[in-house]
Amino acid sequence: MRFFEDMEVGQRREVGSFTFTAEAIKKFAAQFDPQRFHLDEEEGRKSPFGGLAASGWHVGSVCMKLLVADVQRQMREAAARGEKVAEWGPSPGFRELRWLKPVLAGDTVSFASEVVSKRTSESRPRWGVLKARQTGTNQRGELVYSMLATAFVPRRS
Amino acid sequence: MRFFEDMEVGQRREVGSFTFTAEAIKKFAAQFDPQRFHLDEEEGRKSPFGGLAASGWHVGSVCMKLLVADVQRQMREAAARGEKVAEWGPSPGFRELRWLKPVLAGDTVSFASEVVSKRTSESRPRWGVLKARQTGTNQRGELVYSMLATAFVPRRS
Repeated sequence: MRFFEDMEVGQRREVGSFTFTAEAIKKFAAQFDPQRFHLDEEEGRKSPFGGLAASGWHVGSVCMKLLVADVQRQMREAAARGEKVAEWGPSPGFRELRWLKPVLAGDTVSFASEVVSKRTSESRPRWGVLKARQTGTNQRGELVYSMLATAFVPRRS
Repeated sequence: MRFFEDMEVGQRREVGSFTFTAEAIKKFAAQFDPQRFHLDEEEGRKSPFGGLAASGWHVGSVCMKLLVADVQRQMREAAARGEKVAEWGPSPGFRELRWLKPVLAGDTVSFASEVVSKRTSESRPRWGVLKARQTGTNQRGELVYSMLATAFVPRRS
């Protein structure tokens, strides 16, 4: 896990991909977003989505899952190299979340994170504030998901 | 389900409440956000959250679940009264999502939705574009969650 000083604007990291099966789409929807176009293939086909579509919250939650897995992998690797590991602070939220295209059953979405800005925190001088754009791209190369996340990242000093 | 013409800026609707049990927090976290302060009471207490804390994506997904249930309830009631029911379009995304305070195990969060602006769509004249602020407030009256959602709402004409 990297410190504020290690991060550069423009840095991009692939965080992993996920195939949204009909089963996974329906399971999430039944728990958190039981609209009919998220629950039934035929209803999905008749909807503006044109097929059984994943809930936007499912897409965002899967992105979170992959980001966490990526961070945990980086921390294990850094610890294995005997490096000091930076523990990031909790996220205060995010901005400009966009579901740009439907994610339909069978689609595989690849997620990436790119640093768009960094600044030191005025109120907490031991921390930096990082903004990163997280994106999801489907198997046809179409951007389907984008959001701007804010993170608190510790400084080395 | 109401049409664009029925919605007024400032309208507020309580959409329901949810108690985040330790069990529900851990179950969501294991699936989508397996950070240790979302999975274990002791790790939560040692974290900046000060207790076992719900994933922000869990809070957002529960808000979605209650919004959908509220919409479905309104549609059933309108249909039972023999009224014409408006079918809202899919949401293109949202802005300014804020996790303002931790949601800890045992907290009950009440969600509400308030119309903040409305305009007709230039590209799709049969639709209006509504912005609504969705909020979550805990049992101590503290605002814990806020986001600005955009929805396409059909016009009567």
